Amino acid sequence: MRLPCPSTDDKMSTMDAKAYIAELTRQARVAAGVLATSNGARRDEAIRACAAALRANKAALQAANQKDVDRAPQFGLTAAMIDRLRLTDKTIAAMADALEQIASQTDPVGQALAAYNRPDGLRIEKRRVPIGVIGFIYESRPNVTTDAAGLFLKSGNACILRGGKEALYSNLAVAACVRQAVADAGLPAAAVAMIDNPDREIVAAMAQAEGGIDLIIPRGGEALIRAVTDVATVPVIKHYTGNCHVYVHADADEAVARAIVRNAKCQRPGVCNAAETLLVHAAHIQSGLLKQLLDDLASAGVSLRGDERTRAMHADVTLADESDWASEYLDLILAVRVVDDLEQAVEHINRYGSHHTDAIVTRGLADAERFTAAVDSASVMVNASTRLADGGVYGLGAEVGISTDKLHARGPMGAEDLTTYKWIVTGQGHLRE
Amino acid sequence: MRLPCPSTDDKMSTMDAKAYIAELTRQARVAAGVLATSNGARRDEAIRACAAALRANKAALQAANQKDVDRAPQFGLTAAMIDRLRLTDKTIAAMADALEQIASQTDPVGQALAAYNRPDGLRIEKRRVPIGVIGFIYESRPNVTTDAAGLFLKSGNACILRGGKEALYSNLAVAACVRQAVADAGLPAAAVAMIDNPDREIVAAMAQAEGGIDLIIPRGGEALIRAVTDVATVPVIKHYTGNCHVYVHADADEAVARAIVRNAKCQRPGVCNAAETLLVHAAHIQSGLLKQLLDDLASAGVSLRGDERTRAMHADVTLADESDWASEYLDLILAVRVVDDLEQAVEHINRYGSHHTDAIVTRGLADAERFTAAVDSASVMVNASTRLADGGVYGLGAEVGISTDKLHARGPMGAEDLTTYKWIVTGQGHLRE
Repeated sequence: MRLPCPSTDDKMSTMDAKAYIAELTRQARVAAGVLATSNGARRDEAIRACAAALRANKAALQAANQKDVDRAPQFGLTAAMIDRLRLTDKTIAAMADALEQIASQTDPVGQALAAYNRPDGLRIEKRRVPIGVIGFIYESRPNVTTDAAGLFLKSGNACILRGGKEALYSNLAVAACVRQAVADAGLPAAAVAMIDNPDREIVAAMAQAEGGIDLIIPRGGEALIRAVTDVATVPVIKHYTGNCHVYVHADADEAVARAIVRNAKCQRPGVCNAAETLLVHAAHIQSGLLKQLLDDLASAGVSLRGDERTRAMHADVTLADESDWASEYLDLILAVRVVDDLEQAVEHINRYGSHHTDAIVTRGLADAERFTAAVDSASVMVNASTRLADGGVYGLGAEVGISTDKLHARGPMGAEDLTTYKWIVTGQGHLRE
Repeated sequence: MRLPCPSTDDKMSTMDAKAYIAELTRQARVAAGVLATSNGARRDEAIRACAAALRANKAALQAANQKDVDRAPQFGLTAAMIDRLRLTDKTIAAMADALEQIASQTDPVGQALAAYNRPDGLRIEKRRVPIGVIGFIYESRPNVTTDAAGLFLKSGNACILRGGKEALYSNLAVAACVRQAVADAGLPAAAVAMIDNPDREIVAAMAQAEGGIDLIIPRGGEALIRAVTDVATVPVIKHYTGNCHVYVHADADEAVARAIVRNAKCQRPGVCNAAETLLVHAAHIQSGLLKQLLDDLASAGVSLRGDERTRAMHADVTLADESDWASEYLDLILAVRVVDDLEQAVEHINRYGSHHTDAIVTRGLADAERFTAAVDSASVMVNASTRLADGGVYGLGAEVGISTDKLHARGPMGAEDLTTYKWIVTGQGHLRE
């Protein structure tokens, strides 16, 4: 299982990186063949063993994590970022819980998406199967490592994981637990490979490993995703951050609107499903709700940028320009616009939004239906906060990310979205006439 | 509806092509919005009206087609190719029939792929929706135009069609029928755009129309598909031709094996689902079936290239080299290899094949299961000819092509494969804690 891998401090050449990835993918392809024909109980056993290993090896994980925390300042991590990097008792317990939730879900592999007989007796089945080998490139906290490994095992895929350099020691320690657990369950440890070299050449080599890797999923900031897609020859599912909207319709319940707007903007402003623009129906100039919402936001410390009608309602609102409608602030800043009807809200969202997650607050069934049908986004929320766009909330156990692509997978991606299908056609000597 | 399009004989600049596609996609995006919120009965009405228009305008279609046939020699088309280009009475009737079959299928749009309540009362629905605007670039016969237009309408997508120059007049005449029928059904004619300029700059402009086109499907020879993917920034689903295998297992029924091998190779050798390699279990050296298969093929005019054990069985077999196993002959040529067991057959197929369509001939249930699970191909046939990998045969009414990609759609692509989904989440003021 020893890989031809330089030590973590070596600088790699492009050739080295290609050779390294070629060897990893060769091993992963063999493992993928075993996983594709394995039964679900064995894969669940491996996932549960991972959870147990995390709990049993808490001290070792935290010791490795401490190394990352100690050198975090050299990567320029802020105190808040270091806090999120830390593998606390609570974090490790949550990682193990998520794995157990993933293990308890229905096996997606082998499900029949369709199965029928044709008039001439030919039997057609469209059967869900793993994709094969998936490359996952991420820059988030170490808990993403187990969420991803769990979902890849659940869906029968071998994976090659490449985490951020700031979490390298933590990720290697977590991966050691996972690989041991996979081996203990009688599956190949090569099913979960963790790249132990932080060199950037590796990312390009992964993205160009046609035939070796079937799919690349980059998860992180826009710079990371661009770096992958710009050079990729392997298919990529993109996880851009979001420019999300809350639209408060004319008939909105006032208390619901206030709670959702505050939650969508303020509960955690730095993430992709936080709201960036508030659209309010013009009726709420009269009703007073617009003023109330602006008061709520201002007193929560939100900087407000609005159109003329919004500015007329509140002294703290500065004038928004075209760039504000297209901005993802990822901060306590909100653009606000008054619209004359639901159609104008939809038009604004489809024009300026990022097709990630958008919400309406309304009491009307027909208006909710018009909005959900017309808004071209991965998640459309009715009387619910945009912050709820999340694999855990949707019951997927975890997520490898939130796809902003339309093809293959859209929105929070769980195990089911990590599968493809094959057609199995059974005849009794059937020929083409 | 007049487009800013130069006459069909003008040479376009890159700028012109970009402007032309920008205007087409702007119109298509508006049409896609109407289609996405239209009901299925209206779309089916449009598809049936297309079928009626083809039948009613047979003379006009054939007059336009005659122009293509007349100038076919200047494009170097062979007699066989000209024959396939021709819109005969029978061809037009078959085009109309396929449209009616598409119209009679269940509407994929709006189907719930999943729908459930979470413990906290949040309602989650994963609802099938159209993709949006699809660019279809093809070089096949004019019947592909109506198959594609029908499937795009069925799935609620607007489309921009770009056929081959050798069928330009036929395609424009067919598209005029389709657009009139769509308008008669009360839907926007811009839902089906047909590019009336054969310039190659258009293909690049389509492939780079990010935000304007959501998906490109190229259908044709490998050169066309490479030309699209090499420059594409829009997602592409690829339809490469296939290196398909028939594996005759030790326990194969002799008559079934002979019929399938002959059909898979000879019924129409120039297409992607014809067999290119025959694998035969070593037991059939003794049983005589290998010799029989080689006799059958030789007398059907097939040139045979085999490994040493195959050569020993038949005088007409020349020695195959490594390149033969990877070849798509698209001709009356077949590579033949003797394998010692099912695993060796699977390994050969996964190594040399193109993951398109591969078949086993066997009487054993367990062996059929092992083969279908382990062969990593879009279609796996059991006791059926590879030639049956086809949207019509699978009951999809028609197909826009046969995907050799693993993501999003695999194998014959019908209306269902032209959809994506959105998550619709309904709460009563639900917030993220």
